[in-house]
Amino acid sequence: MRDRTIWWEEDGVGLIEQTLLPEEYREVVCSDVPRLVQAIQRLEVRGAPALGVAGAYGVALACKNALEGSESAFSASVNEAASTLRSARPTAVNLAWGVDRVLSAIQPVSDPVDAAERALTMAESIADEDEATCRRIGSHGAPLLPDDCTVLTHCNAGALACAAWGTALGVIRSAAEEGKNIRVISCETRPLLQGSRLTAWELSRDGIPVTTIIDSEAAYLMQRGEIDCVIVGADRICTDGVFNKIGTYMHAVSASYHQIPFYVAAPRSTFDPEHRMADIIVEERGREEVASLFGRTTVPDAVPVVNYAFDGTPFSLIAAIITEDGLIREPFHHPWLMP
Amino acid sequence: MRDRTIWWEEDGVGLIEQTLLPEEYREVVCSDVPRLVQAIQRLEVRGAPALGVAGAYGVALACKNALEGSESAFSASVNEAASTLRSARPTAVNLAWGVDRVLSAIQPVSDPVDAAERALTMAESIADEDEATCRRIGSHGAPLLPDDCTVLTHCNAGALACAAWGTALGVIRSAAEEGKNIRVISCETRPLLQGSRLTAWELSRDGIPVTTIIDSEAAYLMQRGEIDCVIVGADRICTDGVFNKIGTYMHAVSASYHQIPFYVAAPRSTFDPEHRMADIIVEERGREEVASLFGRTTVPDAVPVVNYAFDGTPFSLIAAIITEDGLIREPFHHPWLMP
Repeated sequence: MRDRTIWWEEDGVGLIEQTLLPEEYREVVCSDVPRLVQAIQRLEVRGAPALGVAGAYGVALACKNALEGSESAFSASVNEAASTLRSARPTAVNLAWGVDRVLSAIQPVSDPVDAAERALTMAESIADEDEATCRRIGSHGAPLLPDDCTVLTHCNAGALACAAWGTALGVIRSAAEEGKNIRVISCETRPLLQGSRLTAWELSRDGIPVTTIIDSEAAYLMQRGEIDCVIVGADRICTDGVFNKIGTYMHAVSASYHQIPFYVAAPRSTFDPEHRMADIIVEERGREEVASLFGRTTVPDAVPVVNYAFDGTPFSLIAAIITEDGLIREPFHHPWLMP
Repeated sequence: MRDRTIWWEEDGVGLIEQTLLPEEYREVVCSDVPRLVQAIQRLEVRGAPALGVAGAYGVALACKNALEGSESAFSASVNEAASTLRSARPTAVNLAWGVDRVLSAIQPVSDPVDAAERALTMAESIADEDEATCRRIGSHGAPLLPDDCTVLTHCNAGALACAAWGTALGVIRSAAEEGKNIRVISCETRPLLQGSRLTAWELSRDGIPVTTIIDSEAAYLMQRGEIDCVIVGADRICTDGVFNKIGTYMHAVSASYHQIPFYVAAPRSTFDPEHRMADIIVEERGREEVASLFGRTTVPDAVPVVNYAFDGTPFSLIAAIITEDGLIREPFHHPWLMP
């Protein structure tokens, strides 16, 4: 098994095809940017930090392929690919962040071959940095978890959402590595089941005890006293709250009602100090994600579906944001949150 | 299309096979009690009031079939069938209520043929009464809904959960019949999707505007100001709270946080004045309901699943219980709640 979720290889960008898990483990190689954009849109690769790495490798891939064209067209070709990559998914801020970091590392382009090399070096260093960042998030977050506890998580903010280790699951991994007795409740995370398919898969593979529930059971387990804290990742941290996978807000409200701490674990690349939550248009995804399951119809054809991919949780419901530089807490005054 | 969800016919108890909706509308006839018990356990028929009617018809069916045996064995045979029916599903109190009402109507048995006739008459009258009860619930509940509003509901407390009309959906139908402009948000209701499959199907068939969402999106729609109230049914109303489909409690907590009224609509047969919520052992159903979808594995085999069928919502989160006799509200002192 690889220790990275996304990587560079001779033919392009390699990744684990996450839509097939847990039934099948398959690696795919995206040899051009359109295929990588498709992989991002189809959620073959997903998770905010992983999208940052995908965006970075994507620009390196665009450079590599642009070397086959004329030298004069190189910059235009790379910029066009970067723009397609940047808009492949609208809510996760990390994607554009990864694209732009590599783009600015090669500006101005004097020699395409040299630019392509620098792009790849920068993309590799973003991937390495991502893993190191996750480990620092883990170290800062682990002390928040009691020595013996049950942690609820939603969606997948694990190794599969990053280059490696994970953000929310990175905290759990670090606590387990320190010898704490951590049990995880993984909400299945409708509609695409990243919690049951991916989080349960990767924790189980690591030997960390994990149980799957349907999303709507979380509040009831809190009522029964079976949850000690909640940790989730983030797709975009605005100046007044956090966007993450749809369902996150519901867990935050439930945790608040039951006085259970609710933590968000995310790297700096997730922060968007330029926007308040109200400024963000949340991605609405297709009806088929909800209305059909493995080819079977579960919603009558005449009935519309509203399928927001993310929701927003105000800081007032969050006990702490766990970052690679430490915790951000009430009153959430922090340089990364200043425009 | 029939106007009843469950009915008596020459060969036994007829019902709509609800697990096949919305892809297929199929009627089945249960010609003996074991087949009816299977239909109850497989959720071909479900919903608290409908289970009451199923239990009642089930005793009538047991009587009909016991007529083929010896006269001396009649009572023992009927009692044994009644006992199997009563325990087919443990949490819904209506099932035992329907069984016991028909049983006591034929006690003491002097003439089996006469007892079988009385059993059927009582079962038919329970079915008729169920529809009349739902219409009275509808009349009492409709004034609670604003003239133009969006109502969130969970699972199916509709015609398919009763003999006809519905409890929660009965309130919505009555309000629509009175000319109010009602839009419904139907939560899909994992794991078995009664909300997207059944509620969306029956409201759409009636021309009441309905939209389906995943369960965990409800709180976010509340945050966005898109929900005016919540109405759900009930499986058992104890002296301090209400058991209903898993997920109900989560919606109640979210509604409370957003100061949105949360209503429960249920007939007297759902009331259990003998128990507090803590006394009730909640049915846990099999892992396969969560771990596989239409034959595809969604949870790794090594990962356990906790699958409670119901959760409990304390009265403190409920604005009113809507019954056939009117509303029960704070402080929830009512004869039906007295032991």
